[in-house]
Amino acid sequence: MRHTELFTKTRRDAPSDEVAKNAQLLIRAGYIHKEMAGVYDLLPLGLRTFNKVVGIIREEMNNIGGTELHLSALQSPENWRKTDRWDDEKVDNWFKTSLRQGGELGLGFTHEETLTALMREHISSWRDLPTYPYQFQTKFRNEARAKSGLMRTREFVMKDLYSFSRSTQEHDVFYAACGDAYERIFQRVGLGVLTYKTFASGGSFSKYSHEFQALSAAGEDTVYVSKEKKIAINKEVLNDEVLADLGVTRDELTEEPAIEVGNIFSLGTRFSETLGLTYKNEDGESVPVVMGSYGIGPARVMATVAEVFADEKGLVWPVAIAPFRAHIVEIPGSEDVKKEAEELYSSLMEAGIDVLYDNRDARAGEKFADSDLLGIPVRIVVSEKTLAAGKFECVERATGHTTQKSVSGLIQTLS
Amino acid sequence: MRHTELFTKTRRDAPSDEVAKNAQLLIRAGYIHKEMAGVYDLLPLGLRTFNKVVGIIREEMNNIGGTELHLSALQSPENWRKTDRWDDEKVDNWFKTSLRQGGELGLGFTHEETLTALMREHISSWRDLPTYPYQFQTKFRNEARAKSGLMRTREFVMKDLYSFSRSTQEHDVFYAACGDAYERIFQRVGLGVLTYKTFASGGSFSKYSHEFQALSAAGEDTVYVSKEKKIAINKEVLNDEVLADLGVTRDELTEEPAIEVGNIFSLGTRFSETLGLTYKNEDGESVPVVMGSYGIGPARVMATVAEVFADEKGLVWPVAIAPFRAHIVEIPGSEDVKKEAEELYSSLMEAGIDVLYDNRDARAGEKFADSDLLGIPVRIVVSEKTLAAGKFECVERATGHTTQKSVSGLIQTLS
Repeated sequence: MRHTELFTKTRRDAPSDEVAKNAQLLIRAGYIHKEMAGVYDLLPLGLRTFNKVVGIIREEMNNIGGTELHLSALQSPENWRKTDRWDDEKVDNWFKTSLRQGGELGLGFTHEETLTALMREHISSWRDLPTYPYQFQTKFRNEARAKSGLMRTREFVMKDLYSFSRSTQEHDVFYAACGDAYERIFQRVGLGVLTYKTFASGGSFSKYSHEFQALSAAGEDTVYVSKEKKIAINKEVLNDEVLADLGVTRDELTEEPAIEVGNIFSLGTRFSETLGLTYKNEDGESVPVVMGSYGIGPARVMATVAEVFADEKGLVWPVAIAPFRAHIVEIPGSEDVKKEAEELYSSLMEAGIDVLYDNRDARAGEKFADSDLLGIPVRIVVSEKTLAAGKFECVERATGHTTQKSVSGLIQTLS
Repeated sequence: MRHTELFTKTRRDAPSDEVAKNAQLLIRAGYIHKEMAGVYDLLPLGLRTFNKVVGIIREEMNNIGGTELHLSALQSPENWRKTDRWDDEKVDNWFKTSLRQGGELGLGFTHEETLTALMREHISSWRDLPTYPYQFQTKFRNEARAKSGLMRTREFVMKDLYSFSRSTQEHDVFYAACGDAYERIFQRVGLGVLTYKTFASGGSFSKYSHEFQALSAAGEDTVYVSKEKKIAINKEVLNDEVLADLGVTRDELTEEPAIEVGNIFSLGTRFSETLGLTYKNEDGESVPVVMGSYGIGPARVMATVAEVFADEKGLVWPVAIAPFRAHIVEIPGSEDVKKEAEELYSSLMEAGIDVLYDNRDARAGEKFADSDLLGIPVRIVVSEKTLAAGKFECVERATGHTTQKSVSGLIQTLS
């Protein structure tokens, strides 16, 4: 993409009410726009990175047998009343609205009720199980205080997968497989080393659930971590029993702030029993389906990566989720420089490399500052100097490591 | 995909309150699920077809210079008050909700206000124009009566592009280019012959807008059409002046019901003047930006194709938007039949052909009926008979045309 086709501009300052580093940087770099507290738009650069995160999650969910669908946001009360999650006294973050002709509706903050009810039409026999539908769908949550930028928002796309299994044993196998898939996802987006599968509170049907917590000073959660043993426990469940269960002592753990980037939860038969989702087992008996739910917010993942990798000059994206692989920065000079930059852009695009080409008529200092702020992994400088040298200057955003490369050298490095 | 991985089942009857043929068929075939009147979920097959429609629209929007972004659904009143579109007396299809700490919000039914306000941060000079942001984003419309299945819904994804141009002349060039792109889109999804670029009412800034109307008995709109002259006029604007403008007589036109599958609209400076979106022209003067808006609902397109191509046996998809290219139907028999079907499935998948493989242990009659209902363009039968013949039976869904093909012949035909 040519910079002149990208309508967004970088800005010196984020809005004064924006205190979170991730949102400040993403706003300044033109990745997102703040509509109101807790509500953000994804601008073209932000949408590109967001879509790369989505693509990685989708691949991993398909690999463990997930089947994608898309449920509605508008919810009628019926199923939620049955599970006692409609009343605002019970669930305090509903956005409610109503139909013109009367009748209250809610905007889904999750989809257990909806999908459990829907699956009654498709699950009847043990032959229909297990099955793992998932979606990327917009959730609405009426948060009392939306802060921390994209970490806690009132409207956000969530990847939510729900597992439907025949037994606790079958459920446990998938639960573990999904945990492994989550670890691969956080590895692939660049958060692997920082992210801990963390013991958190379970429910009536399982002692624990698991959160995936990325250690970060910006985190709203507190976890207790043993980096040696790769064990983490959410503060909420830290007690002697849990320590004994996990075979660690309190002394081995350090307190760390962390960002919850994903969670997996065993639901047992809470929803299937209440909403009547049963199947006939091989003996012809009617049995409630065993369920689990598995969430990741791609925008929160994006914001976490922004938060933990950024430096004083701006964003620093890992290759896997960068909006572009490389950033050609043309330093305005002779017509030959422009011609060279245009040719390089064409060559890289033809080689299938996603490039942003800064073809603007602007000062070198402004262009370098913008390039640093945008955080694309590799900057390729085209100037009178590189023209004279017969090679392009290639700078890694994360390290500042600089090399001189030919077109073919660049294609080899970036492919 | 193996049929056993697809959790949806076909059903004999649609819900009794569902009167529209498109929704009846899509529900019976397991493409969609009805949550309530005017609110549908996309099940895996439906999402696949929906995504193919989205992919075609995205390609055509990118080809005319569109840049994709994603705006929020939640809207604060401020900008809408300025354009006088907040009050329920003025706009009667808002869904409104409110923040826990107080403050009314709306769920966007369109995004002119939001995007115009946002663009003030990015447009300041003639150098920043023209620009064409677009999105695929969920709209909410509190329709008094939701009927006609997916044709008129309360929650739906819309492709909405907004053009920002320096002058009426520059706007007109893009308006025409977008009209051409729409014609390519409707061609590609299979609605080309049926779809007319239709003169409809304009606004303060242009005499006409244009709707793309697909002729169908299920249409809610009425258009007057000259098939010879390829001219269509919405009933709303049919008068002597319009007939004179277009050089047709009333006698040349026939009245037809039609489905509005897209529309393009010149907005002039209505929104830019009200919300203060101006740019400095080459003479340094501050001038309001000239705008247009361009909408298509991918699910309505999908429903229109379902409606117009279906036959008495079920859905009939054009290749371009079918959920799968081919449907392998294994007629349970010896182990050799299963082995042959599995091998065929692997060969087609390896060749990059999207196939649904009906590997269920069910009667031939049931499988053929399901296959007809699903409407995948080509059915490949694997049975004792085809095994003996040494070739597969290949049946075109639309025509019933049957041929015998080898694996390599199938790959050649389906690639």
